[in-house]
Amino acid sequence: MASFRFRCTECNAEYGEDPARLVCSVCAGTQQRGGPVRGALEVVLDGLPDAWPDAVPDSHRFLTDFLPVSDATALPPLPVGNTPLLTVPALREHLGLPHLWVKDDTRNPSGSTKDRASLLVVAKAREYGLETVATASTGNAATALAAVGAAAGIRAVVFVPASAPQAKLVQLLSYGATVFRVDGTYDDAFDLCLDACSEFGWYNRNTGLNPFTVEGKKTAALEISAACVSEHIDVVLVPTGDGVILSGVAKGFADLTRAGLIVGPPRLIAVQPDSSAAIAHAIQDGADAVTPVLGAHSIADSLTVETPRNAIRCLRDIRTSGGSAVTVSDRQIVDAIPRLARSTGVFAEPAAAAVLAGLEVALGQGLVERGERIVLLVTGSGLKDVASAAKAIETPEPIPASLAAVAARLDRGA
Amino acid sequence: MASFRFRCTECNAEYGEDPARLVCSVCAGTQQRGGPVRGALEVVLDGLPDAWPDAVPDSHRFLTDFLPVSDATALPPLPVGNTPLLTVPALREHLGLPHLWVKDDTRNPSGSTKDRASLLVVAKAREYGLETVATASTGNAATALAAVGAAAGIRAVVFVPASAPQAKLVQLLSYGATVFRVDGTYDDAFDLCLDACSEFGWYNRNTGLNPFTVEGKKTAALEISAACVSEHIDVVLVPTGDGVILSGVAKGFADLTRAGLIVGPPRLIAVQPDSSAAIAHAIQDGADAVTPVLGAHSIADSLTVETPRNAIRCLRDIRTSGGSAVTVSDRQIVDAIPRLARSTGVFAEPAAAAVLAGLEVALGQGLVERGERIVLLVTGSGLKDVASAAKAIETPEPIPASLAAVAARLDRGA
Repeated sequence: MASFRFRCTECNAEYGEDPARLVCSVCAGTQQRGGPVRGALEVVLDGLPDAWPDAVPDSHRFLTDFLPVSDATALPPLPVGNTPLLTVPALREHLGLPHLWVKDDTRNPSGSTKDRASLLVVAKAREYGLETVATASTGNAATALAAVGAAAGIRAVVFVPASAPQAKLVQLLSYGATVFRVDGTYDDAFDLCLDACSEFGWYNRNTGLNPFTVEGKKTAALEISAACVSEHIDVVLVPTGDGVILSGVAKGFADLTRAGLIVGPPRLIAVQPDSSAAIAHAIQDGADAVTPVLGAHSIADSLTVETPRNAIRCLRDIRTSGGSAVTVSDRQIVDAIPRLARSTGVFAEPAAAAVLAGLEVALGQGLVERGERIVLLVTGSGLKDVASAAKAIETPEPIPASLAAVAARLDRGA
Repeated sequence: MASFRFRCTECNAEYGEDPARLVCSVCAGTQQRGGPVRGALEVVLDGLPDAWPDAVPDSHRFLTDFLPVSDATALPPLPVGNTPLLTVPALREHLGLPHLWVKDDTRNPSGSTKDRASLLVVAKAREYGLETVATASTGNAATALAAVGAAAGIRAVVFVPASAPQAKLVQLLSYGATVFRVDGTYDDAFDLCLDACSEFGWYNRNTGLNPFTVEGKKTAALEISAACVSEHIDVVLVPTGDGVILSGVAKGFADLTRAGLIVGPPRLIAVQPDSSAAIAHAIQDGADAVTPVLGAHSIADSLTVETPRNAIRCLRDIRTSGGSAVTVSDRQIVDAIPRLARSTGVFAEPAAAAVLAGLEVALGQGLVERGERIVLLVTGSGLKDVASAAKAIETPEPIPASLAAVAARLDRGA
């Protein structure tokens, strides 16, 4: 419930709140079609809380004090976030990491971290009296917008690649969204959504463009720190496609640092599929800008992007945190799904399970020390893409309903 | 953290805690193979809390004070329950029910209410030093056991009908359960699990048999009342197959009534598919016992059962509450999935969406008054059975990535 202004993430120009403003007027002049968003705006809040709440009941109010909404009643009637930070004893022991946590964001209403962004964007649309919010998405952001929009009475219009997994499509159609399946990539859907918002006057939730997506996603970081008030977190691993979740997490830790509630941000490690790794390559090469990955593809559909639209800010945020980036293969991602599920009870979609594979790569590369306090952000439910999870497991043949059949199967090592 | 004893739900005989005891020695003598469980035991807790907690942070401890565990450290490291009670303004308006809530149990770790039962059964297995827990299941109970077991280091062995939806199978295999797909019905799987537990010494979680499943599921009722301390709930609608979720909810309200924290239980209305409605028929006919529905079938796989094993207790619990039972068709169930999603943001599996259809039937039959305080228990995520949800929506054809194609689609009423 803080007042706020916008600040350009490139030139630091400041702007007051304006429903029609998504980017910096000056830096947007350098925008190239299909390229990373230029002049992305960051929310600068005044009057942040200067102390942790004494008790859990105040936590919800505490979190909303970090949100740029004029009134908590604007928030849609669908609780988002406040997901558990799991202590994962079996995974700790298996990996030899005594201070490892899993932030289980599969528990969000539509099953992914994207609900955090949609909650805030829909709240702002309600404040602004807007009726329609549109977004491009690989699937989860669209579903999140559809779910939160349904609860709040806001119409959702979504643009997804025609190849989006069936579960994500059915889910967002069930929520009543207007769905455009675009013959093309996520990148094509992004640009089409931009054009359609201009043409039809819809409020644009495109991630990396709408400043409130980062603001919404920052709640994941606020919750992690709130759950570990007495312990500094050293490292957070974040699945990365466009890079907006990572920037959201960075913004949360930045706000907490500004408020004096933590000493500084943890190192943020971006995890990307090796076949869709524009941000990781730029970090590893020390490059100022990303090189698009034409024909990017991965089993982690949520992370598949040729040109990460949030690249400029994401590269800045990784470097400011002292972090890094790793890449993982599709095979490593698929194998991580049951390994995470068996050691934690968390069933993750490919993009989310990728952080476990990424952690092991980071350990191997010396980017993480075994004694450090590490959080894996698990961003989406495995139920969103069962076909991919099925690649890592073997479905047993049926047996007759007899004890002899059970015994025989057990003898064969079931 | 209360001490407890067992009491037979039929003859009121009492027994002390004993890991090997699941049913009443006397009444079990009347057990027929394939019939409802005879001599099911109920947990009678001593020293229930006699006041609501003053503040939310005490809520978690408050809830565990109602659980028959010796020590909260026995609870697996995977938070279960504490799901939101949604105010659903759009659905309230649409139905003309100003005091309607949705208890969103899709937010549980494996996506269903069954996690509540598994949490407690696995906790007891840990207390007892048992390594393997087995269950028969239409899918969700097995998945819940696999998830909670994975987090707690307990081996899960599950028996499911070979026809269980693919998503449920993949999910529980990902969690590392030993899975027996039984060529037969859920009823066949139930009996095979009984035999296998006897043969191999596994702890039997079968719902309706293991007294801790009802105890775990009662937490849904505790949470509903805790969220509405100042308001008496009049009616709760519960999806009903075996009838154990309903008995769990009844037990929660009974404990709260015994503790003096509520004036009495709400009326419990069982919702069953009309093609798998043994309990509803017995209620509607005023019968003392259920008549098995041979060839029971429904799109709500979670509610498909020929002989509800928990029938005796479920009939008692519905009647004690002053409640009733309604049946709904598969078509009504399927249609309810998008209607619930569009008006609340909650995407439910068929069994769970059935409560919305059931509410409308109950309203039509005068079983519910419009001014009453009504809760719909939404028991499982729609992501568990996307194929069924797909029957109620139309997947749009892809469009080229052009504004003209968007405009044309909008003109056609997209």
